[in-house]
Amino acid sequence: MNGRLITLEGGEGAGKSTVLAAVRAQLEAAGRRVVVTREPGGTTAGEAIRHILLDPAYQGLFPETELLLMFAARAQLVRECIRPALDRGDWVLSDRFVDASFAYQGGGRGQPASRIADLERWVLDGLRPDLTLLLDLPVEQGMARAAARQGSADRIEQESLGFFDRVRLAYRERAAADPGRFRVIDASRDLDTVLDQVRAAVDSFLAAETVS
Amino acid sequence: MNGRLITLEGGEGAGKSTVLAAVRAQLEAAGRRVVVTREPGGTTAGEAIRHILLDPAYQGLFPETELLLMFAARAQLVRECIRPALDRGDWVLSDRFVDASFAYQGGGRGQPASRIADLERWVLDGLRPDLTLLLDLPVEQGMARAAARQGSADRIEQESLGFFDRVRLAYRERAAADPGRFRVIDASRDLDTVLDQVRAAVDSFLAAETVS
Repeated sequence: MNGRLITLEGGEGAGKSTVLAAVRAQLEAAGRRVVVTREPGGTTAGEAIRHILLDPAYQGLFPETELLLMFAARAQLVRECIRPALDRGDWVLSDRFVDASFAYQGGGRGQPASRIADLERWVLDGLRPDLTLLLDLPVEQGMARAAARQGSADRIEQESLGFFDRVRLAYRERAAADPGRFRVIDASRDLDTVLDQVRAAVDSFLAAETVS
Repeated sequence: MNGRLITLEGGEGAGKSTVLAAVRAQLEAAGRRVVVTREPGGTTAGEAIRHILLDPAYQGLFPETELLLMFAARAQLVRECIRPALDRGDWVLSDRFVDASFAYQGGGRGQPASRIADLERWVLDGLRPDLTLLLDLPVEQGMARAAARQGSADRIEQESLGFFDRVRLAYRERAAADPGRFRVIDASRDLDTVLDQVRAAVDSFLAAETVS
């Protein structure tokens, strides 16, 4: 039986790293072999592309360049890592995936959704996440958490409040349009409450998997 | 008055570097300010992308990744370098441009021409070369010249004869389909004869420009 693709989405300071570790542990406890990856990156070429995308030295990157680089890294990740893992029955857990392009390059940078959907169609070639956990919280709260956490912000983290407001809105619209795949997690709550919500969402996904 | 975009295309060992220098000198002698650039590359981000594309360390790059990286570098080159140069009236001379994607990623790697044309449409946003010089020669002859010239081949230069045959065919088909823009130069001849052909092509382009 093929594996499943679970993606984790959300803005800055949403607690993705902690949630990722928890979901991994939960899946492994349920007997799944889990491959963890991230976007942009996850492959040798993809990590080199990530560097261009996030290094503040590349301040002059145009939105079209950013969109194409994101999909270049994604094309490589799907073919080199995700597809082979799913084919051998592993479950793949990705820290961000294609919804992030609709949120960041679409909502944030204003690239047309139809352009992103065209790329999605041929780059992913039918692959879509089976479950997407969207960690949602007010932008100011996420930015305050992110600022407390780290020394220096990467190129995208240096963006304005307005940018991240548009990212959040685009994420929420994606989730509303595809409620069967998305679970929106209220990430503004304390960590234990967030992890409880995540655990419940993954449990219910696993239960539905077992029945089907 | 806006500048003009002249592109130089051709396979390995076609003599592009020598021809590029000659065309630049000819244009400058005719009073044009010339900006010389190259693909992939030509910008800070583009040269970093070029490294990923050509370093044999990235042997596992999938054709889709390669195509997207080529257009990412091109998106940046057009916006950061070519458009601004043309807008201020400079002439731009580029060592390869969008036709190379139809030849290498299309003909060579088998990516569908419609996919490349879709990317061309929104990434170039109406920009097209005013004149394209295609340095055409038999693949074996070009590979023998390239082998004599250099120590180590890059990732794409390491491809098979069959790959370069498909690249040449795709280039010739592009040229045949757009004879108003392309000038096919017989690059199998000795250097002086090649440069004579190039000079005549550029002279006739300049003459037509002066009239119009």
